[in-house]
Formats: sequence, C-alpha cells, structure tokens
Amino acid sequence: MSGSIYGNIFKISTWGESHGKGIGVVIDGCPAGLTLNEEMVQAYLNRRRPGQTKYATPRKENDTVQFLSGIFEEKTTGTPISMVVMNTNQQSGDYSEIASYYRPGHADYSFDEKYGFRDYRGGGRSSGRETISRVAAGAVAKAILEELGIKICAYTKSIGNITIDYENSNPDNILISPFAMPDLKASNAAEQMLDTKIKELDSVGGVIECIVTGMPAGIGEPVFDKLDANIGKAILSIGAVKGIEFGTGFGVSTLTGSENNDSFYYDTEGKVAKKTNHAGGILGGISDGSEIIFRAAIKPTPSIAKTQETINKTGDTISVNIKGRHDPIIVPRAVVVVEAMTAIALVDMLFMSMTSKLDNVVKFFK
Amino acid sequence: MSGSIYGNIFKISTWGESHGKGIGVVIDGCPAGLTLNEEMVQAYLNRRRPGQTKYATPRKENDTVQFLSGIFEEKTTGTPISMVVMNTNQQSGDYSEIASYYRPGHADYSFDEKYGFRDYRGGGRSSGRETISRVAAGAVAKAILEELGIKICAYTKSIGNITIDYENSNPDNILISPFAMPDLKASNAAEQMLDTKIKELDSVGGVIECIVTGMPAGIGEPVFDKLDANIGKAILSIGAVKGIEFGTGFGVSTLTGSENNDSFYYDTEGKVAKKTNHAGGILGGISDGSEIIFRAAIKPTPSIAKTQETINKTGDTISVNIKGRHDPIIVPRAVVVVEAMTAIALVDMLFMSMTSKLDNVVKFFK
Amino acid sequence: MSGSIYGNIFKISTWGESHGKGIGVVIDGCPAGLTLNEEMVQAYLNRRRPGQTKYATPRKENDTVQFLSGIFEEKTTGTPISMVVMNTNQQSGDYSEIASYYRPGHADYSFDEKYGFRDYRGGGRSSGRETISRVAAGAVAKAILEELGIKICAYTKSIGNITIDYENSNPDNILISPFAMPDLKASNAAEQMLDTKIKELDSVGGVIECIVTGMPAGIGEPVFDKLDANIGKAILSIGAVKGIEFGTGFGVSTLTGSENNDSFYYDTEGKVAKKTNHAGGILGGISDGSEIIFRAAIKPTPSIAKTQETINKTGDTISVNIKGRHDPIIVPRAVVVVEAMTAIALVDMLFMSMTSKLDNVVKFFK
Amino acid sequence: MSGSIYGNIFKISTWGESHGKGIGVVIDGCPAGLTLNEEMVQAYLNRRRPGQTKYATPRKENDTVQFLSGIFEEKTTGTPISMVVMNTNQQSGDYSEIASYYRPGHADYSFDEKYGFRDYRGGGRSSGRETISRVAAGAVAKAILEELGIKICAYTKSIGNITIDYENSNPDNILISPFAMPDLKASNAAEQMLDTKIKELDSVGGVIECIVTGMPAGIGEPVFDKLDANIGKAILSIGAVKGIEFGTGFGVSTLTGSENNDSFYYDTEGKVAKKTNHAGGILGGISDGSEIIFRAAIKPTPSIAKTQETINKTGDTISVNIKGRHDPIIVPRAVVVVEAMTAIALVDMLFMSMTSKLDNVVKFFK
Repeated sequence: MSGSIYGNIFKISTWGESHGKGIGVVIDGCPAGLTLNEEMVQAYLNRRRPGQTKYATPRKENDTVQFLSGIFEEKTTGTPISMVVMNTNQQSGDYSEIASYYRPGHADYSFDEKYGFRDYRGGGRSSGRETISRVAAGAVAKAILEELGIKICAYTKSIGNITIDYENSNPDNILISPFAMPDLKASNAAEQMLDTKIKELDSVGGVIECIVTGMPAGIGEPVFDKLDANIGKAILSIGAVKGIEFGTGFGVSTLTGSENNDSFYYDTEGKVAKKTNHAGGILGGISDGSEIIFRAAIKPTPSIAKTQETINKTGDTISVNIKGRHDPIIVPRAVVVVEAMTAIALVDMLFMSMTSKLDNVVKFFK
Repeated sequence: MSGSIYGNIFKISTWGESHGKGIGVVIDGCPAGLTLNEEMVQAYLNRRRPGQTKYATPRKENDTVQFLSGIFEEKTTGTPISMVVMNTNQQSGDYSEIASYYRPGHADYSFDEKYGFRDYRGGGRSSGRETISRVAAGAVAKAILEELGIKICAYTKSIGNITIDYENSNPDNILISPFAMPDLKASNAAEQMLDTKIKELDSVGGVIECIVTGMPAGIGEPVFDKLDANIGKAILSIGAVKGIEFGTGFGVSTLTGSENNDSFYYDTEGKVAKKTNHAGGILGGISDGSEIIFRAAIKPTPSIAKTQETINKTGDTISVNIKGRHDPIIVPRAVVVVEAMTAIALVDMLFMSMTSKLDNVVKFFK
Repeated sequence: MSGSIYGNIFKISTWGESHGKGIGVVIDGCPAGLTLNEEMVQAYLNRRRPGQTKYATPRKENDTVQFLSGIFEEKTTGTPISMVVMNTNQQSGDYSEIASYYRPGHADYSFDEKYGFRDYRGGGRSSGRETISRVAAGAVAKAILEELGIKICAYTKSIGNITIDYENSNPDNILISPFAMPDLKASNAAEQMLDTKIKELDSVGGVIECIVTGMPAGIGEPVFDKLDANIGKAILSIGAVKGIEFGTGFGVSTLTGSENNDSFYYDTEGKVAKKTNHAGGILGGISDGSEIIFRAAIKPTPSIAKTQETINKTGDTISVNIKGRHDPIIVPRAVVVVEAMTAIALVDMLFMSMTSKLDNVVKFFK
Repeated sequence: MSGSIYGNIFKISTWGESHGKGIGVVIDGCPAGLTLNEEMVQAYLNRRRPGQTKYATPRKENDTVQFLSGIFEEKTTGTPISMVVMNTNQQSGDYSEIASYYRPGHADYSFDEKYGFRDYRGGGRSSGRETISRVAAGAVAKAILEELGIKICAYTKSIGNITIDYENSNPDNILISPFAMPDLKASNAAEQMLDTKIKELDSVGGVIECIVTGMPAGIGEPVFDKLDANIGKAILSIGAVKGIEFGTGFGVSTLTGSENNDSFYYDTEGKVAKKTNHAGGILGGISDGSEIIFRAAIKPTPSIAKTQETINKTGDTISVNIKGRHDPIIVPRAVVVVEAMTAIALVDMLFMSMTSKLDNVVKFFK
C-alpha cells in the first residue's frame, strides 16, 4: 500500500512528484450533475500557488489545472474526474546535492529506509507540491458542500507568538493578508517578524483554525469513524501538521465537567442549540448541529538556509545550508489545504451517513 | 456505514452496548501461530475494569473475556478471533429517566438526530464500555508487537493542573498509581484534588502521553496513510479525546525551523540517530527509528451529579443531576485504551508496509 | 488479511469453526429502525439446518440464533448487530484421523500451506457450517430488501443430469422438495438418483438458479463494482461454487449479436422494458429494471465414503474412506446460502448507489 | 461510489471516456525497485489496440502510454504510478445520433437511470476503451508476477461453435492468430465464419480460457476473499463477460464426488501434486500449487449494423442500424484484458497473503 487514496464513498486517488511531469488527482465517487469547470478549481489552486509573496517560495508555477475526464457539458457525469497540473518550472539542478545526505526535519531518511532509495528531486513525493492534488479535489468537495449549504473557513490563528484578535478580525481579510490572517494588525506584526526570521535564514511555525458552518446534526459514525477521528486523519495527513484539537481541545485537560459541558437549550425558532461550544460541534463523534471548530499545529519549514548539522549517506557528519526555493513559513499556504481536506472528509462522512435511518433509505428508493 | 470496523489488513470489528447482552470484537487478519490465551487478554481488560478504586464507577463487572473462535491449542489459526465479554451487572433502572432528555456533553442528542432514536440504557453504544472491544483487540496486537520487539507505554501526563515530573517518574508506578501516573507524588496530589472534585459533584480532565519504543524506521505511507494520521484517527476515535499532538506538537507553532529540526548523527554503533526528537519519531509520515511520542487530551467526565441545565425532548428546559455509576475522571482508565488503539494502528501499519520494497517481496515468496 | 469481512457500506464480519464454540456474524451498517427479531433470522437458518432429510448430514444441531447487540425493543439501532449460533453437537473424535492426511477435494492441504497448520476438526473454518454466518446476515439483508420491494428466489435448477421443467414448476415447492426444487417430478427423480449414489458411497453436484424481482434500474457501478462482478464475488465465495453465469451466460458464446441483444420497448404503462432478457437484468454492470437471473455450479460433496487415494503428511500414499457426517449433495442446503449472499451484495450495492445523482443527494439532506 | 478503484493493497484507480481527452490509471501500492519503462506497458497495449485486423474497429489510435509519476531512473519508487493514453481519433460526430435512443445490449438506458444523463459519445465511460487502463495496470502487475516466477496465459478457447483443439495448439500462435487462438486451424475456420457474420452485419461471441502457472500454494483467503471469488470479480467486471467457471466449472454439476475429487500424490521430487485438476488449482478458495484454470464467456458485440428494434427517449419504438466503428467480435481483444485483470487480482492476493503466518512476519521484520 502506498496510501495515496483517501475516502470510503467519495474517494480521491492522488499522484505526482515535485520534479516529475506533473501532479494530479482522480476523484471516484462524485455525484452526477454537479456544475464544474476548470475555473472553479483554479480559484482554489491560486490560493496555494507559489511565488505570490516574498513569504513563499519563488518557484514560478502557474499550476494550471486541466480536466481529463468525468465532465460532460460542464456537469460531472458520476464517473471518475481526472485532474492534472503539469509541472513547468522544475530545476532539478537545484536539488542534486541533497541526494547524498539527509536533511533535518525532512522525510529523506525515512523514505530511504522505506523504499531503499528516493526520488530526491525537490522532495519527490514528499514535497509540498503534493497538496495540489488535495486542493483540486477539495474544490470539488466544496462545490458539493455548497449545494448542501455547508461552508468551511480556515485561517491563520497564530504565527510564532503573534495571535489574531478574533474580535477584531474579518474573514474578508483572509484573502488579503499574505498570511491568511483575518486580523490585519496581527498580519502586519507577523510580516515584521517574518522579515527578521528571513534575515536570520530561519523559518517559523503557527496554528491554523478551521470553522464549518451549516453542518447538519447526525453526521459521523459512533466508534472508529467518528467525525473528529476522520477529520483528524485528514488534517494530520497534511505534511507539516503536528497536532489537532477540537473545540476547547487540550484546554479540556484543566477544566471540570461542569465547566466543559455545553448546556442545551431551545433557540427562538425551537431548534436545539448549545449555550457554549467546548465540544467543537461534535458529541460522541457525531455532529450536533453547531459550528465545527478545530485547530492544527503547523511546524516551521524544515528547509532553512541557516547552517545545520546532519549526516551524509557515506557515514560523515556534515554542515549544510539548504539552498533551493523554500517558503520561510508553511502556515499561510496550508490554510487552503486544511479547507480542502476538511471538505473532502466531510463529503465522505455525509455520504456515509445516508444509510443511518431505514425510513430515509426507503423514502430514497420509492 | 456504522463505523465499528477499523483497519486495512489487521481488521477489528466491534459490537455491543453498555446494557445489552455483552461487548465483543472480531479480529480478522491476525497471523497464524501466535500464542494466545484468555489470560493474556484478561490482563489488559483488568487494567480498564471498573470498580477498582473510588475514582472509577462502582459498577461491578468482572469483564471476563471468552474466546469463541480462531484459536486452536493456544495458537491463533489465522482465521477470525471472536472475543466476547458478557455484561453481568446491567441496572437499566438507573438510566430509564435519561431517555427523555439530552445529557450535556453526551451523545444523546446527536444519536437521536442520526438514528431517530437510541438505546438510552447506560449510553448504549456510546458508553465507555465500548472500549472493552478495543482493549481486547489491543491485547492481541500487543502480543504481535512483542514478537517484533516493539513496546508501547502510555501513562497519565496530567490531571487538571497536576503534571507529572518526568525526571522523577518510574514506569513501574503506572500500574500502582490509581491514576496511572508514573510519578507517585503527582499521583498523591491528584488524589487530593479528585477528592475535592468528587465532593463538589464534579469531574476533571487530563492528558495521556504514549511512547513507542523499538519501532523500525520506514513504517507509514507517504500521503494519506501517514503513521501520525493513522495513529491520530485511532486515538481521536476514543470517546473522550479532544486533541492529539506528536512530538513537540502544538509547541512547534512558536518554534523556528532551526529550533525544531532534529539533527541526524551516527551513534556509536554507526546507526542513524537524532540528537533531539521534536518530530516525535515520525518524518514525512514515516517512522524514523526513534521513539514515537504523542499526547492526547481527555475531557472531564460529562456525567456529573452537579446540577446542570439542559432540555427534554418535549420542549422544556430542565435542571438535571446525572445519577448512575460514573467515573469522576476518565483519564486513568483511558490509558490502556490509548495503548490498545496504538497497538492496533501500528500492527496494521506494519503489515501495510511489507510491500514497500520489491526486493523484500521477492525474498518473501522465494 | 483473512478475508472474513464483506461489503463496503453494509459490512458483515464472520467468524467460527465447525467444532469451535460457535459460529457468528457482526453486521456493521444496518440502518436504524428495521423491525428484527430472532424468529426472522431463525426461519432462514432452519432452511440450511442439517439433519432434516436423509440427503443431509445427520449432525444434530438446532442452530439457534441469539442476538447479542444492535437491537432495542425489536428495532435495529443502527449500531453493529452481533448474532451467534453456539455449536452443540461437536464430535471431534470423528475427525481426529483426518489431521494426518489431506482429503481430496478439501482445503486441508491449501490451509496447511497457507497457515502452517490447521484446526482439522470438522474442516475448521472451511466447514460448510461457516455459511451459518452468511445466512444469518442474509436474513437481515432480505428484511431490508423487503422494505424496498425487492424479492430474491433461489432454487435447485439441476442435480446431476436431472433438470427441472421450469414450465411445470411452482416456487411453493422449493420449501417442500428435499432438494429445493420447484418441480416435484424432477425432485422425485433426483430422490431416486440420490438413493443410488448414497448406496455407491458417492455424491453429486448440481446447479442453483437465482432470480431477483423488483430491482430498480440504475444499481451497480460502471467499472470494477459492476452489479454482476459483485454478485459474482459474493456467490463464488461460497464454498462449493465452481462457476457463475448471468442471463444466457455461457450460452452467449454461440449466439450472434442480433440473437443476444434484448430489444427495448415501452410497456402498456409506458415503462421501459425488454422483449427478452439474455442480459439477465444487467447492462454495463448496472441493473436495467428487469429480473436479475444467474446460475451457480455446485460441485459434488468432496467427502465421500468411497475409497479414494491420497497422501498423508509423512510422505505416504494412502487409501481413505471419509467417515463422519456428510451430505451426499451440497446443492439443496446451498440454495438459501445463495439467496443470502445475493441479498447481502444487493443491499451493499443499493446503498453504494445512493450518491449517483447530486439532485438526490441534495434532496436527501434538505 | 463510482467503482473505478480496484484492490486492497495493490490498488488501481482508473478514469477516462471513449471520446474524452484520454484514458488513464493510477497504481497505488506498487513496490519500489521494479524495473519499468513505457515500452513494457506499450507491448501489452499494442495487443488490445484497435485497427490491426479487419475483425476489429477501424478506429485509428496509437494508444501511446505516457508515465506521469512514480518512476525514477526506470525504477518504480513505491509511490503512485500515473499512466495516461491520450485519445487522438475521437469522431464525436459519429455518435451524436445515439444520444436520443437506447441501443440494445448497451448501457445507455441503465446509465441514464443511474446518473440522470450520460456522456453518449462513443459509449463514454462504458466504452471498451476503458480497458486500456486495465491493460496498462496489468502490464505492471505482470512485471511483478514475473519477478515471482508466475506466468499468465489467456487465449481464445472458442468463437461461436468453433473450438480450439488444445492438443494441437501452440501458445506462440496466440500472438499470430487474429483471434488470439493457439490453434491456427481453428483460427482459420473462425476467420471464414466471421467473414460471413460481417456480411450479415452481425457479430459473434466466444469463450476465453486463462491458465496461471508458477502460482505458489497458500494464496487466497478462506471466506469472502477466496482466490476464485476475487479473480471472478475481476473478470466479471470486464464489459462483455457473462460468466466465469474454474477448472471443470459447470461440468461439476453432472459429476460425482469420486469423479470430481483430485487425488493427491507426491511427485518425483517429493512435492505434493494432484493427479487431475478438476478444481482448477484452487481448494477452499486457496491456491493448491497446481495450474489455475478458468474460462470466461464473452458476449457478441452489441453494436451491429443489422436492423434492430428499440426505443427513443421521447416514447417511440424505432428501428436502428448502429453505425460507427465497431468490432464484429470482442473476444480476441479481450484476451489481453483477461490476462491483465488476472494479474492485478493475483498481485493483490499475493500481497494480502503475506501476513498469514506469524513466523514469516517476524522473519520479515528481523
């Protein structure tokens, strides 16, 4: 198994290396009749495209998506949707040196141990470019969710010690801030901090928060396929993520039950609601109809120009300064990847939940 | 889908409710020839059994496991292993009242939304007794790991604000401390704190840490089936877990790359090693041969005797005091569940990795 | 993997050996709200129960099913349904001899090669008793299909050279004939033939036909998960089945296109229909709304009392007369197993098809 | 689910339509280190390529495969292998008419019922061109099998009433005969018969036989994932296949146990062997070390120029003569597809069997 397929009913199968011919994804299980064109997918790819600010790798790629199958007259046909982004700006020369040693914080060593060798050009399969497949598939998943009235919004919660002020934040700023921060004051502070770190040839980590609105109650399966377990896997599968927490998350460890329990009430329309949302919208692994909220910890870019100690394959300890074209921070470009993986996981879980009640199944077929 | 099956090659299928006839698990994919008897499984079940300290539910259950299939002359045969624990101390009368309302912090409401109704007796399928299946299957997984020289040790890292002092801790204490704490001083402090909380009719949360030693490098699949993604799903699928982090975890968000990267070196035996382990033993989703370390946040028991506001199904806001037999803290009994789920996930990932290299496959069949 | 789990959404996980403690199945993915009690399942188990005619093994087993989970007040809850049939009449002594040699036509040798050893008592996991799990799960699947207006009827088409006369056959006879033949004249002829074969210490094969009515058009997935591919796998997984054919089946090999194509027409209600049904109700792997028809070839019971040559494990060629309690023909008792596996496959395929059209998905969630 | 993904460990994900941009496949789970280049795959694609004889569609396609990922310096890297064949000779004009009606024997109606509409150009996803993906993936699977000493040979057993004489047949002829027949005399007779059928504007069916040699004993899982069940699904998923039988197949229905049982003996090297092979190399769903033999029934091409009655979508009964570029017989070009699907199924089953024995697993990791 190589683990590049995700999903139970809405399945995605991804492929591609940083310096191969291209990157792509096949979606197997998208319902027929969804309006879909390349522009809709491109809009999401543009959000993760490199070369747009000085805080991202200068590698110039248009990352233009092409549909190869599954669409007929701008509608999905129900059969597999194959999407491909050809690589145009591979500079394998940049990377030839790293073939001989193991970069700290990278998958070079673990790949060699697993496979016996690796496509070392630009990180090969473990490159951040792999996330193009996720974002393209996520764009399709988001189009499905939109039809169901479900929205996903992710943004940078913090970079280093700079945290957004949620009260003064505005979702419209997410697409304006070079750091995908809804709070421009924090964004400016982060800019100054990053400028320093770039000069120091270093990189920085941060936290992404994601909020899902419009989620119906009753989605998620009780034991192993809990909604949080599946979102968790989807998000932890993104390269630089080192942790995930839902609702109050690690904060629950110092709360009491009376503090942490969310009281139910009937809202003015008689709908069941909760006074607080420590649970992050999930009870017993099943959505409770309130907002789903989670946060992911993103590590600092491991590729830094600062001198580091490591080893080469011939037995020596060496000093390296990683050259090449690297982001000084992963967080902002990962925001759309978090949205994408959330969308993919949610569509799959929604589809999985369609057989929960016999009544609904009988109605469906009659 | 009801999501009670876990795994790709080493598959477990679980069933049972708190107040049904019993709880069980079928393991499909255990290799033939493993020495296995009921005592080996019972030893793990005893670690999560209720009624052993005043910090756990007084429900009296022996939780005696019986093997129904898959074993012949104390060896696994390679065919499904069916294990069952019959419930003996159901007191459904205790729970009849909760049928009419939604307990805060519980899955009552989300189950009703999902299925239209629920087996409300003792939480039904969403009861903590469901973890019996996990622990029984985990005991088998641990026996396999032992054959491979891999060990898993989980313990309570913190309860409320009381955190263990790792320097002064001793793994032997884990089975002595009523809180599964390797540091008895912290354990004593927690005991006093819990006594107060019990008097206040409240409950407390905490953090469990888990360390895996002896893990070979090269296990885990690069994209969606990363080792951390799959462990993450396994752990987040445990009832009360609200977050998971690997290595430095959320701490990476305030580190720089030069701080967070782990330098490689050759140890005295010429083996590749790392000077630090911020990565928690996983690089690019693949084990790097060092210890795997992660932490899980456990919420306070939602069932508390303290008065809470909630709603009933007939449209009223009501005050409730949850009666019944509940743990004032979930953490200690969840420790063995964390070990079990880790073991199950690791066995599955180890088996998945056996086809990574053609050379090994060819050697295997020749 | 041990391959005892079947299904994508409606999943069944089976376990048990001929001479172990029992046989069982866990159904994961049955919708909530289905009326289900033990009698409903028992009715199907009774159809495959041994000891009812002289043409079946004299082993005395009541094969009484017990529900252990997943049912609350005679309704399925949506969580796993665990069903168990305890073995009561194991006579391991009967079988001890066969531990030392490989019975012709049996899985003794292939099991030993696969696992290194085997539970030889009564065939262990490869015993026909394994089908108890299939029939119990099939009973639940049939109850679901009934709610959707879908009926499955299997019967013995032929035994040896005796074939039913379909014109003069009556489905009511299936439960009357000791051979599950809807044509009693053929059944009587088969009885005489079998009496001869029993005297000759031999056994006979046959063909089972299965017809599904009420199947909606549009079920089945275009490429690998074609309706016929999945039914095919389900049926070929039954022990003694050596072939399956749909509609005209192998007969198509000598037909021309103009003979084999089924012409479409509009019936008196304006519904699309076909003048013939060479296709067996499936076009391009997807149901076309007409009857689904297929046949399965069932081999003669391999256990015969007649002298056979084989080998023992110590290197000798030996003559054996298989003792023990065996059916002289597998066909009649396999009929209900064919129905069961068809039902299980159909429910899974129906559930898989619920996301084919976006319109339906949107309607479902709104 | 759209069912275009096959496999448990060696997974293939296929996409593409007859008149879309291309056809492709992603292989997820190919071990690293396999020598693989485009020529190796092209050799298989050339065997199914159209336009080579007058017995195949005159559509001119080079069907040139391109590798887009997963290969580094002519070795597989262990990560997904993406292969694509671009369509170059789409003539959608040929097909526009068929949008309005349902061709007999085709999936037009069942697709419309499933998805609400269809990509009608050349059959869209249900076109025989879909098998390009299978053959490309099969070429990779065959390369793996070759490393393990396993060979697969499929050929045309019969066309209409013309059956090969196996005694006088020669496998070398398979690539010479326009019908993939190893017996050239039968091939010539078939040629004459086909010439007549072409003049009659009709088509013919036939039977393909497939033999696997070098298969180790012990492969296949006892219950649902029997070797024959999985091969069966793989083969029945090929468009025109209406039946499959293993070994003596439907012939077993008229045999007695004493005739059908294969006696074991020790061969001159002391290896376990069987005197006959009625079982087709599979006992209890597990390979027994002898040749695996099965046959598939292939229906006559449904697209015929002869006048047929059918209906259009606006409610009329109409007469149609299917134009376009069609094969008068599917059998010969399906031979390589049968080989491909067999190879894919076998690789997956071999990989699944690697965890059968604990001893082997322990040895593997030590």
